[in-house]
Amino acid sequence: MDDEVAAKLLKTNDQFLILTHKQPDGDTIGCAAGLCQALRQMGKTAYIAPNEDAHALFFPYLEGKLAPPDFKPAFLVSVDTASEGMLTRSTALFAGRIDLSIDHHPSNEGYAKENWVDAKSAACGEMIYRLCCMLGPVTKEVALPLYVAVSTDTGCFAYSNTTPRTHRVAAALMETGIDYAWANKRHFRTKSYRRLKLESMIVEGLERYDDGRTVIACITLDMMAALGATERDVEDIAAFIGQLEGVKASVTLRQLRPGENKISLRTSGELNASNVCALLGGGGHAAAGGCTIPGTVEEAKTAILNAIRTIQHG
Amino acid sequence: MDDEVAAKLLKTNDQFLILTHKQPDGDTIGCAAGLCQALRQMGKTAYIAPNEDAHALFFPYLEGKLAPPDFKPAFLVSVDTASEGMLTRSTALFAGRIDLSIDHHPSNEGYAKENWVDAKSAACGEMIYRLCCMLGPVTKEVALPLYVAVSTDTGCFAYSNTTPRTHRVAAALMETGIDYAWANKRHFRTKSYRRLKLESMIVEGLERYDDGRTVIACITLDMMAALGATERDVEDIAAFIGQLEGVKASVTLRQLRPGENKISLRTSGELNASNVCALLGGGGHAAAGGCTIPGTVEEAKTAILNAIRTIQHG
Repeated sequence: MDDEVAAKLLKTNDQFLILTHKQPDGDTIGCAAGLCQALRQMGKTAYIAPNEDAHALFFPYLEGKLAPPDFKPAFLVSVDTASEGMLTRSTALFAGRIDLSIDHHPSNEGYAKENWVDAKSAACGEMIYRLCCMLGPVTKEVALPLYVAVSTDTGCFAYSNTTPRTHRVAAALMETGIDYAWANKRHFRTKSYRRLKLESMIVEGLERYDDGRTVIACITLDMMAALGATERDVEDIAAFIGQLEGVKASVTLRQLRPGENKISLRTSGELNASNVCALLGGGGHAAAGGCTIPGTVEEAKTAILNAIRTIQHG
Repeated sequence: MDDEVAAKLLKTNDQFLILTHKQPDGDTIGCAAGLCQALRQMGKTAYIAPNEDAHALFFPYLEGKLAPPDFKPAFLVSVDTASEGMLTRSTALFAGRIDLSIDHHPSNEGYAKENWVDAKSAACGEMIYRLCCMLGPVTKEVALPLYVAVSTDTGCFAYSNTTPRTHRVAAALMETGIDYAWANKRHFRTKSYRRLKLESMIVEGLERYDDGRTVIACITLDMMAALGATERDVEDIAAFIGQLEGVKASVTLRQLRPGENKISLRTSGELNASNVCALLGGGGHAAAGGCTIPGTVEEAKTAILNAIRTIQHG
């Protein structure tokens, strides 16, 4: 299906509930908020399902839009959600009942009655923008969350998924009169003191192997507790060490609980991150992969280092 | 004058020497490289004057374009250079002889025979792009340095100077087939280990005053020496502490030599950075200012803290 079919479905239905994915990012929240506003401007009743994982950074976009407990939806739309397994604890009950999925993940499982998937969009926000243009005037109330969706999913237009169309969508959204300087400051140019302290601890504890080609950064439960750090403070932390110059493999090891360690691997050049992580039951892409390793932090370090060396010398 | 007059001047002259500003950034280097390439594609002879301050990050854009010592220019163009005082040590001799200045600084002093100044452009690179469109096809060899110019001067489209036009120029440049992922990785997603260590030292040594509303970060000569840090490692370092959440005034104090301290002040809310720095003989804008304070590091700290408190309570 395409954007015109999706627009028609939205025009001919009502009583919408919009679903976001668990551990929500700016794309899923921004898409939900922009679409909810656009539907309301058409005179429809539309709400966003509460997402228990959403942190305070996203609250302004959700304000006044969260579904009350007694809301009875007639049409369910999920945004930026590749599978029903990505629903939240409180929205998992809608599995099997979703009417429309709008998503840009190539891995979308086609779980809804209708699925509009465009893997060429850098952000799902680009797709919702196209849709909103068909639904009515794109006001700044629609545009601001969509700008947040598009900019956050592209690392403020720096990631390699950014396309010329991403920039043109951003330009159009900015022209509605949104305060994009405020949004950029909020999402890209603000860090908590705890986050800066965490980054500092990571640098001080950085371990280098194989003539510096591989580095390992550890975030232990003790470090998190010492800082009083929350999930927000560790968001996208793998990118932090991933920016270190001259490194072929950067590992961010996060101790989730005693005996369970989450690995995020970033690679450059020929080393395939997905192949490395596959050795440990994980997966990913050429330049970024992940897996979970049981055991102590030291055991997990040894395991990922061995996997990197195996693929490197394989 | 406007872009058409500038284009005509370039079409009707030859033997071009392009001048960049001292302590060059991506905008001045990218503009020079893009313009030089566009002029050569017209069959003109064009070179860039060597800039002794340019660091290795910019070398790829200058390759094959630097003027040989015996080059006799007939037409001098400066790019992104607000005054003749901004010329380099080796190009200062061209003061009074510059034929065309192309610049986006509102403070441009109109020092050239012809001056095309457009303060609405976020980057001078936007102006050079418009110009190059009038001179001939914008090939990817023209486009790559112009993309670097536009993206670096806007903090990868995050600073408040970014406009819808900036995004549209970026989209057009990307469509020429440039490797923008490479450029973004190079300029926005790569940090040296020394830079990360420096940031870590800054965080560990951060001083907080007035219930955390004011923070002071110090970079002393001893710190620089201990890290073996170069100018490249401290580039735009004031923005680092400027991103700290919840702070009204962030001061980055850099000891230039014993007895001389450079202050960069970032403010939010009502506190005017320019007014604070004016008390100490400096200046700036509402949200960013600078000044130089003599004396020891401790004396400089006291002086800037007093100036902040004076304006805050004035």
